[in-house]
Amino acid sequence: MDFAPSPRAADLTARVAAFMAEEIAPVEADYHRDLAAARRDGDPWQPLPVIGELKQKARTRGLWNLFLPAEHAGEYAARFGTDGGTGLSNVDYAPIAELTGRSAIAPLVLNCNAPDTGNMEVLLRYGSQEQKDRWLEPLLDGRIRSAFGMTEPGVASSDATNMEATAVLDGDEVVVNGRKWWTTGIGNRDCKVIIFMGLSDPDADRHHRHTMVLVPTDAPGVKVERMLTTMGIQDEPLGHGEVSFTDVRVPVANIISGPGEAFAIAQGRLGPGRVHHCMRLIGLAEAALEAACRRGLERTAFGKPLVNLGGNRERIADARIAIDATRLLVLNAAWKLDQGGPLNALSEVSQIKVAAPNMAQQVIDFAMQIHGGAGLSDDFPLADAWTNARTLRLADGPDEVHRGMVARLELAKHR
Amino acid sequence: MDFAPSPRAADLTARVAAFMAEEIAPVEADYHRDLAAARRDGDPWQPLPVIGELKQKARTRGLWNLFLPAEHAGEYAARFGTDGGTGLSNVDYAPIAELTGRSAIAPLVLNCNAPDTGNMEVLLRYGSQEQKDRWLEPLLDGRIRSAFGMTEPGVASSDATNMEATAVLDGDEVVVNGRKWWTTGIGNRDCKVIIFMGLSDPDADRHHRHTMVLVPTDAPGVKVERMLTTMGIQDEPLGHGEVSFTDVRVPVANIISGPGEAFAIAQGRLGPGRVHHCMRLIGLAEAALEAACRRGLERTAFGKPLVNLGGNRERIADARIAIDATRLLVLNAAWKLDQGGPLNALSEVSQIKVAAPNMAQQVIDFAMQIHGGAGLSDDFPLADAWTNARTLRLADGPDEVHRGMVARLELAKHR
Amino acid sequence: MDFAPSPRAADLTARVAAFMAEEIAPVEADYHRDLAAARRDGDPWQPLPVIGELKQKARTRGLWNLFLPAEHAGEYAARFGTDGGTGLSNVDYAPIAELTGRSAIAPLVLNCNAPDTGNMEVLLRYGSQEQKDRWLEPLLDGRIRSAFGMTEPGVASSDATNMEATAVLDGDEVVVNGRKWWTTGIGNRDCKVIIFMGLSDPDADRHHRHTMVLVPTDAPGVKVERMLTTMGIQDEPLGHGEVSFTDVRVPVANIISGPGEAFAIAQGRLGPGRVHHCMRLIGLAEAALEAACRRGLERTAFGKPLVNLGGNRERIADARIAIDATRLLVLNAAWKLDQGGPLNALSEVSQIKVAAPNMAQQVIDFAMQIHGGAGLSDDFPLADAWTNARTLRLADGPDEVHRGMVARLELAKHR
Amino acid sequence: MDFAPSPRAADLTARVAAFMAEEIAPVEADYHRDLAAARRDGDPWQPLPVIGELKQKARTRGLWNLFLPAEHAGEYAARFGTDGGTGLSNVDYAPIAELTGRSAIAPLVLNCNAPDTGNMEVLLRYGSQEQKDRWLEPLLDGRIRSAFGMTEPGVASSDATNMEATAVLDGDEVVVNGRKWWTTGIGNRDCKVIIFMGLSDPDADRHHRHTMVLVPTDAPGVKVERMLTTMGIQDEPLGHGEVSFTDVRVPVANIISGPGEAFAIAQGRLGPGRVHHCMRLIGLAEAALEAACRRGLERTAFGKPLVNLGGNRERIADARIAIDATRLLVLNAAWKLDQGGPLNALSEVSQIKVAAPNMAQQVIDFAMQIHGGAGLSDDFPLADAWTNARTLRLADGPDEVHRGMVARLELAKHR
Repeated sequence: MDFAPSPRAADLTARVAAFMAEEIAPVEADYHRDLAAARRDGDPWQPLPVIGELKQKARTRGLWNLFLPAEHAGEYAARFGTDGGTGLSNVDYAPIAELTGRSAIAPLVLNCNAPDTGNMEVLLRYGSQEQKDRWLEPLLDGRIRSAFGMTEPGVASSDATNMEATAVLDGDEVVVNGRKWWTTGIGNRDCKVIIFMGLSDPDADRHHRHTMVLVPTDAPGVKVERMLTTMGIQDEPLGHGEVSFTDVRVPVANIISGPGEAFAIAQGRLGPGRVHHCMRLIGLAEAALEAACRRGLERTAFGKPLVNLGGNRERIADARIAIDATRLLVLNAAWKLDQGGPLNALSEVSQIKVAAPNMAQQVIDFAMQIHGGAGLSDDFPLADAWTNARTLRLADGPDEVHRGMVARLELAKHR
Repeated sequence: MDFAPSPRAADLTARVAAFMAEEIAPVEADYHRDLAAARRDGDPWQPLPVIGELKQKARTRGLWNLFLPAEHAGEYAARFGTDGGTGLSNVDYAPIAELTGRSAIAPLVLNCNAPDTGNMEVLLRYGSQEQKDRWLEPLLDGRIRSAFGMTEPGVASSDATNMEATAVLDGDEVVVNGRKWWTTGIGNRDCKVIIFMGLSDPDADRHHRHTMVLVPTDAPGVKVERMLTTMGIQDEPLGHGEVSFTDVRVPVANIISGPGEAFAIAQGRLGPGRVHHCMRLIGLAEAALEAACRRGLERTAFGKPLVNLGGNRERIADARIAIDATRLLVLNAAWKLDQGGPLNALSEVSQIKVAAPNMAQQVIDFAMQIHGGAGLSDDFPLADAWTNARTLRLADGPDEVHRGMVARLELAKHR
Repeated sequence: MDFAPSPRAADLTARVAAFMAEEIAPVEADYHRDLAAARRDGDPWQPLPVIGELKQKARTRGLWNLFLPAEHAGEYAARFGTDGGTGLSNVDYAPIAELTGRSAIAPLVLNCNAPDTGNMEVLLRYGSQEQKDRWLEPLLDGRIRSAFGMTEPGVASSDATNMEATAVLDGDEVVVNGRKWWTTGIGNRDCKVIIFMGLSDPDADRHHRHTMVLVPTDAPGVKVERMLTTMGIQDEPLGHGEVSFTDVRVPVANIISGPGEAFAIAQGRLGPGRVHHCMRLIGLAEAALEAACRRGLERTAFGKPLVNLGGNRERIADARIAIDATRLLVLNAAWKLDQGGPLNALSEVSQIKVAAPNMAQQVIDFAMQIHGGAGLSDDFPLADAWTNARTLRLADGPDEVHRGMVARLELAKHR
Repeated sequence: MDFAPSPRAADLTARVAAFMAEEIAPVEADYHRDLAAARRDGDPWQPLPVIGELKQKARTRGLWNLFLPAEHAGEYAARFGTDGGTGLSNVDYAPIAELTGRSAIAPLVLNCNAPDTGNMEVLLRYGSQEQKDRWLEPLLDGRIRSAFGMTEPGVASSDATNMEATAVLDGDEVVVNGRKWWTTGIGNRDCKVIIFMGLSDPDADRHHRHTMVLVPTDAPGVKVERMLTTMGIQDEPLGHGEVSFTDVRVPVANIISGPGEAFAIAQGRLGPGRVHHCMRLIGLAEAALEAACRRGLERTAFGKPLVNLGGNRERIADARIAIDATRLLVLNAAWKLDQGGPLNALSEVSQIKVAAPNMAQQVIDFAMQIHGGAGLSDDFPLADAWTNARTLRLADGPDEVHRGMVARLELAKHR
């Protein structure tokens, strides 16, 4: 159990911290103000120019595609990654992800945002050379964005076998039909491809019925029906959409890995992706606790700073304990992934997927409370942060499914 | 301890239930859709025509101003209330408030929405005849709306003595200066008056320094700086605004009760108002639990209805227990208010102000979770409901202040 | 919903309060000291003389058998009850039970302790005249005590259909075999009869397989194998025993109500009994909160009384809110029982059976904490109180079973 | 952050595991039965012979005094420790402490039980050669036991400056007066010395007023007034006593380190001691979770194994998550201690002192619940385990004090 980052990772972490302090922090408030203006009067789905500028700066500083996994990055790490080196291990990337999680825009700026990172990993691990050339390279290059279509409005999607959308082979084409929602990233003007998961062979065994297909967003039959909100927030410029697919035809070459391989891919995709989400949540919770401490020291009521009233100090202590415990749990999951891959970390990844969003939701709720009404407003990033944490109690598998997985593995020890 | 409504109140409750089933329920989904359209393309601050139509229907059915308090309504109950009778006791009104709390528009439609009800009570109890003629009558008539300006952006407003805004007498005028926010109702086009609270005499004793003044919204120097969001939601058509007051001059006749009387008025205003808020939250939680049960029975995963998975049944039981316990606590506070007024129910009112929003937040969070991603979207009213409950952990005194009051009264028994 | 006690009940409640203040409070500490001495050197199972003296005083004051239910007490209320009157309703008895719950000995002294009250109710409702003459009269008279044998060591007894003990008819006798534990009251020297529940007819329908039989404790084949502890406490002089029954033969006249009627009796027995338990827990929690407030005001650390440190005041407030909410919930269940019997209060009784012990456990845990190490010792009654509350999360049905019942009834509304 | 044990520690851990499986597990149930018999009929304070036999076996296997700290053990590690080597780091010892925590007797058998370990550390770090010769050697040799006297019955001892006992220099003697309680270990027949802390110089600065003195248990004026219970449990053969000291005179050579040095010693003593306590609690919680899983798989109700009912699987998952998170937090505190000593781990040690007992209490409470009534009885070690965890929410500083420390350090970052 060694959670220390390698010297190279420690250096990269320090450089990311510096970049955030020097380049992102000074413009983040403006960014939010300009985005709010774009919501009222313009097109919030078109990334603001500052994003492009920051991306350029990040790239120049060699802080680009840091998510690239040591195991699968191959030549792409050298070509599109940082300092010509290899990809990073999960333990190495974890503190970087934590840092980016403190900012609403840093993941995008460093080309490390979900769902693109997960999609790029899928292409790295399972994509054909043609798929890599066409989709992976521009994604790594930051020229296009992507989406992931799994959840469906008509069924309880926590059980993937409920899936009703279809991806049926017809000669040298795949015919895609169905309706997906919570298709994250689809709102972005640069989103050019959706990884779509659908039922191909209902007679195959439970884990070989579904297929993943690359569907260009401009393919005939693809329609973004609407953009969804979470707690009233649209989450521009990526957003979450409801997308219909009506007799969409793409070449069989767009199938990833092979027909019936969707479950295997999803499993591989979700392990590291969940670790990234969880580490970002640690950063989010840290930022919220800092804001709570600062506000609680600055403002006074009944003759005392707020931190000295009622149970506030106990809540600060509980937040510190919860953050530190959860960070260690996430590092442990990362280390287990590094040691033996997803099958080595089934329980650990499900554990953090429960622990991190619940912890973050709790810490942010406290931060909102100590900010008073301001904490719920958009003067502070807390409402967005809370929504982010709350959403992750559902996205990538609800709490209940992950608790079920942890319990199943625990009970298996005693049978 | 008799929480049974009078026969007349039971009859009114039944009639409100019928009105909600027959008139509000059929149009509520349309209302939300049209409001969403108005947000995108029109003016969400102008109440949609259906509101006016429903108000007319409610009035025709004699379901109007049901909040009017038995103790203070006087002649106005007969003139503007229901069935020519007297106002209702808190225990009598409680089940009606619970019913209206199930709908986002029912309180407005029945002329029973905050902050107008609280403002009307203030005018009933403390207003001069001139003030009643000018402001109370049109409010009771539903022709105008009002706002309440207490909280300030620059200080921790949980401690009212922090207040920085001023209301200074100058001859036969009062000069009003300062900045308020979370001024609820100010977004409405029909909002014509603000009850403003400001510091008049810093040298008076702690509870006689502040004055309440009626400030017309069109008085020179009043400016709505911006509308605020809570969790991304603007809460149209009432909304919460930040309002600046710059050398606003109004006649001394606009002072309510007298200079230095603001604390006494606030105390009287908040008791029943908090009971109303809490009863509406009971209704909100009931509606959320119903939605959770229905969704959990309809949708299946892993071969079972969702309600039969994991701890969902336990959460349903805990929600039922929490709702019933909190309703009884609110009824008890209402009964104590009826028996002996606010001073007879200091602990009880603070108890429910803590218990009801926290209970509702918890129940609604569970309902969101069992709805999956849909629960956070605006396809269901749960995100709005959660925000409503969360906001009430801060509005009208944060949890911490009310817990402090309950503890103080508890410890006083042992000194 | 009228929770006010009748004038007669209010008078009895006041008289019980006076009795506890004047007669029980002055001797309770001595009682515990003498019991501790009897544990070390004597026979803790023989009630101490003071118990007999207090019983006599209680009876002289007319505070005897107050539990007698209005519905079923009949002539026995006049003969053995208080002031020649009828039995009390559940709402009337509730505040009396709360008062007795504050003391470890008051229930016994007033002849209102479990399991005797439940057993007497069974005999009142379902007993033959012969059974009443032989067992009910001496129980009402306080001359003998009784036990109840339901739970078994070998199976999960939360599911009564798991029961393995048998009560088989053989001519004009019933043959009783099996092993019971948590047979409360069996330790008492005066315990003369056990209500035993066993399987009679495995082929009958699920709710008519079991029979209740009165088994004298001195019948051949009855053996108290050992006395059990809960958290190290034996709970003398009643205690909880493990009892074996080996070919115990009693006349068929000892069957209560009739063969196969055990489930119906158990249902009727448990409703009011659970309300009594829960009301006593309210009293226990009130006493713990009082102790916490007093200790917290008396002792100082870091220059302040303990109540002013950290979150202690918030915990006091939360305890007050939880106690009041739970009391109201219990009164509501009592009122529903009074209105329509056990079938009218299925959810309500299960609700309080979850809510009251959990609330009491939490409040007492806080009281222990603010007492420091002393709170866990037997210098204070808190460890006993905690154990009492904790035990009731299992006895008479574990939390989980009651939550299941509440959820089942809740979901039934939506099918 | 490297939590991996050294190869030598990994080997020792494996050997401890083997010893516990081969030597302790087979006799532990008998031990508890014999101890129960000794409580009834004999002398529970005289360690049962099996303890002596197991100690001999442990020593033969080289599993003795494993707690000896790398930093301070010096020559004693070679003379009294394991395999002639040095002491272990905190990270190395942690998994061993976890293993011993699974058994009620293992710590004693391996000469690694509190409070002797803490007392031996004090003598190692601060003792004179004479003190080492006289007290440390026989303690390391297992020939005598010791106690620690700090907490007092008359004051809130969470604030050490409240201490009323005195240790006053008088020529070449120290005169010790006062009353201590929760003096752990004093019940043991082999307990020969108490480390006593008392006020020496009320005029010195806040952290130099108190002195630690070695007081032989047979010194005139030392009297064990009584043994205390926690939740009805006496915790033999060590026990917790109330001890009076009346004009006890010992030579000044019995002062540890020097007059006024008590605070410095206490600080150094408590860091590693708290890590040991917390690691043992991890083991206790693991054992409880295992018992819960086994019981939940074995027993059935309503046609299913208990684990498949209600929220039990979720509780198993939450227990697993909480245990793993807390273990990592404890390892992190151990690692920080190893890196830089107590001052480097102030927040971390206080964090685990809050987190571990609360986690263990929760997990054990669940295990008790799934065992039904049996879980509270002494048929299973769960009641003892719960009491152990509950006690540690008070011993060595109550939760509230440690939360206060964590908050203070957190807020210091923002000033």
